[in-house]
Amino acid sequence: MTLDALVFDAYGTLYDPHSVVKRCESFWPGKGQALSALWRAKQLEYSWQRTLMSRYRPFSEVTREALAYACEALGFELRVAQMEALMSEYLALDCYPDVEAALGKLSAYRTAILTNGSPDMIEPLVKHSGLRFDAVLSVDAVKMFKPAPQVYELASTQLTVPASRIGFVSSNCWDALGAKSFGFNVYWINRARAPVDRLGFRPDAVLSSLGDLPGLLK
Amino acid sequence: MTLDALVFDAYGTLYDPHSVVKRCESFWPGKGQALSALWRAKQLEYSWQRTLMSRYRPFSEVTREALAYACEALGFELRVAQMEALMSEYLALDCYPDVEAALGKLSAYRTAILTNGSPDMIEPLVKHSGLRFDAVLSVDAVKMFKPAPQVYELASTQLTVPASRIGFVSSNCWDALGAKSFGFNVYWINRARAPVDRLGFRPDAVLSSLGDLPGLLK
Repeated sequence: MTLDALVFDAYGTLYDPHSVVKRCESFWPGKGQALSALWRAKQLEYSWQRTLMSRYRPFSEVTREALAYACEALGFELRVAQMEALMSEYLALDCYPDVEAALGKLSAYRTAILTNGSPDMIEPLVKHSGLRFDAVLSVDAVKMFKPAPQVYELASTQLTVPASRIGFVSSNCWDALGAKSFGFNVYWINRARAPVDRLGFRPDAVLSSLGDLPGLLK
Repeated sequence: MTLDALVFDAYGTLYDPHSVVKRCESFWPGKGQALSALWRAKQLEYSWQRTLMSRYRPFSEVTREALAYACEALGFELRVAQMEALMSEYLALDCYPDVEAALGKLSAYRTAILTNGSPDMIEPLVKHSGLRFDAVLSVDAVKMFKPAPQVYELASTQLTVPASRIGFVSSNCWDALGAKSFGFNVYWINRARAPVDRLGFRPDAVLSSLGDLPGLLK
């Protein structure tokens, strides 16, 4: 199989959403991990529920709403300045350590990001990280979140590459399987050694690090 | 506002999905709570993700898949006989203690269940519980899970009652808000004293027990 383009998920795959822990910890000592985990879980839940409800809102807004919920659930009073500080962390998330070198070895491919992130979130983040892509595509163009097939179709359309010639890379198993259901070739980066999700599809390959992808595609 | 019908969510509202803990505990001592919590969380995630992927499968199948995932994630080997035993628990879940008396006081209304549960799951459960309803409606008729508006529309259509004259009762906040987004009058039974989900809507009333509903509707 020949691939014309590689499409990467952003949050959880290239950029670590839990790099907010340190800032959470500075506000609520000892609770940074718990807040970050609940914040991320609710962010995803709300993205799925809002899409099902046909009540799409940009991911920056969903992320704020998830933070407000998580703080209330944990009994933290969230001041506006704290919310702004935590949201600004999302514009400067760390890359996972295996990302930069792997992307450097994949320069033969056209590369793109396909993300739930709205442009106001993802554009400053990519710029800050110094990573380069041929396209940065946001679900905001279709007003639905992953794993709706319309999202994956957006990448195929925007890159003018058929699904069968796109390699899709995600660390979020449900995202990888949504892409597989749509018709992409799918590489699940399973850094956490999690079980594969039971959604009726399997990834084409499971890698423990993005660093293994260039070798696999040779 | 006059209501012509009351529509109840089943799992988490009338029937306690965590009544499986005891059986989980008998197989994996000390881990029953953890398994039950992850099983339920994955069951809901898969219901949302499959609907978004347009890959609906009956809830009985989704529930099995969620159990398989949860056991693997926790490192438990799941034998077929154990899966069957755990799935059979779903046909005999306990009612919450506030349910029977409350329903007894609501006999002036037409009542229905509107559930994610497929007929093979919900019909034996309702029969086993001895509760009586004018209709037991499953999302299986529309091949989408909550909170898709088509699900709530099903209740309105099947009961031939307009949304504005239906009172919807759920302990799952996201379900209550999905129903509110559709146009029902919504009563969130917040037994766990959780924060309200941030999905752009508010319930019409928040009750700490189903036992408070008959008084509220007077």
